[in-house]
Amino acid sequence: MRRPGGPGRAAEPGTVYLVGTGPGDPDLLTVKAMRLIGQADVALYDNLVSREIMALLPEAAERVYVGKQRARHAVRQEEINALLVEHARRGKRVLRLKAGDPFVFGRGGEEIETLTAQGIAFEVVPGITAALGVAAYAGIPLTHRDYAQSCVFVTGNLRDGTIDLDWDALVRPRQTVVIYMGFANLPALCASLVAHGTAATMPAAIVQQGTTPDQKVVTGTLESLPELARAAGLAPPTLIIVGEVVRLRERLSWFEPGEAAQPPVDALRSTA
Amino acid sequence: MRRPGGPGRAAEPGTVYLVGTGPGDPDLLTVKAMRLIGQADVALYDNLVSREIMALLPEAAERVYVGKQRARHAVRQEEINALLVEHARRGKRVLRLKAGDPFVFGRGGEEIETLTAQGIAFEVVPGITAALGVAAYAGIPLTHRDYAQSCVFVTGNLRDGTIDLDWDALVRPRQTVVIYMGFANLPALCASLVAHGTAATMPAAIVQQGTTPDQKVVTGTLESLPELARAAGLAPPTLIIVGEVVRLRERLSWFEPGEAAQPPVDALRSTA
Repeated sequence: MRRPGGPGRAAEPGTVYLVGTGPGDPDLLTVKAMRLIGQADVALYDNLVSREIMALLPEAAERVYVGKQRARHAVRQEEINALLVEHARRGKRVLRLKAGDPFVFGRGGEEIETLTAQGIAFEVVPGITAALGVAAYAGIPLTHRDYAQSCVFVTGNLRDGTIDLDWDALVRPRQTVVIYMGFANLPALCASLVAHGTAATMPAAIVQQGTTPDQKVVTGTLESLPELARAAGLAPPTLIIVGEVVRLRERLSWFEPGEAAQPPVDALRSTA
Repeated sequence: MRRPGGPGRAAEPGTVYLVGTGPGDPDLLTVKAMRLIGQADVALYDNLVSREIMALLPEAAERVYVGKQRARHAVRQEEINALLVEHARRGKRVLRLKAGDPFVFGRGGEEIETLTAQGIAFEVVPGITAALGVAAYAGIPLTHRDYAQSCVFVTGNLRDGTIDLDWDALVRPRQTVVIYMGFANLPALCASLVAHGTAATMPAAIVQQGTTPDQKVVTGTLESLPELARAAGLAPPTLIIVGEVVRLRERLSWFEPGEAAQPPVDALRSTA
């Protein structure tokens, strides 16, 4: 069931490809993801995989929505796992598309554990996780010799809706904290960081739909950010970045989403 | 000096593109990076940007090596910054190629600060940072609901060769620790984690040239890994992953580098 995954290989029948589709901009797909998407027989996808990326699938490819939302699970994890096995057994080239990277808050490990137990061949294709895409397009380096020598990725809400973070591990000098899926808990997240010792004046940013034409960036401090985000009318998906590096955006910002053209889907497809 | 960075755009003269080239496998370049590489007039590159990726530059493109190694800086940072400005002022399409992601231990922020101060247009193209590429190709999820709800990236050596990590922030339950550039300090890193409270039996992996045909993965525990790595004859570049998730590799491994073909460079170039 193991197989070589060398560059340039075509998608193989009966194989599941767990593919990270990056933060939204189809230009940030990997070359490998783009090729596999163009060759898929069936694609199981989440709600955060962008419309532009779904448009790159062959017209004949079967599209199966298995997205999960915070309050309700559209399709339970066990059903997704079973669907992957079923389609692979039928000899399909099966893509499991996940926004960002499949191994960073993507539950990729859980899905392929079933595949390996069932003897289904699979490959894992890393993607630009939201932290990297958002940082680049918002002009906020995650590390910087003068300001941050480490960065930590956490998720801002748990299965039951509570926050259960190791605050003492986050509240550290010279560390950038990136919070995935934290929109609903933004006020509590900011307050907790301050309560555990981070300065209320620590720079913080929240970025909505980073890398896309709808990107919105709101920067402030741990104290001011919740109200600024509310006033700006932000909505999920968002990413929160906390740390001195946020200050650099003032000088390093370059992406003006308002002027960005919609992706030329046909042009992209031709590179697959 | 700011400009839209929408998908599908061609490289523009007089602009600097700070491009992450990913962990080594050219198939893991982004579509955007691949296109820009095919259009470059001049490329400044590091020693970790792979030969296969350099081969994707147009034949006429000027290649400028500005790599840094641990003990000696081939070209000082100020000189790199000045070179970027100089080439852009001459109206060139300038690529600054960096292995991995430019904003994760890539000093990307420092280089574009000079550009912005000099009024040079630039864009930042995120790349698959080594942690993501290595995790996917080694079968080690960085997060997993049962084992790790956060992951932290640190660098294993500082400018002066010493280690100066915030051990208490690393030694945490349910956290995956990824150490970049830690090869030379592997014994000290493992010993320090144990000294600060991590179990000596904590699973740990060191991966050499992850995602490439020369990938080698050695797994063990914090206690056994240094000797195992020595016995396996590993050499930089490597990435170290510490955490319960390393155990999953036993079931989730899929990439067999020995069987992987060398990348078909011409085929890749045609997708640019």
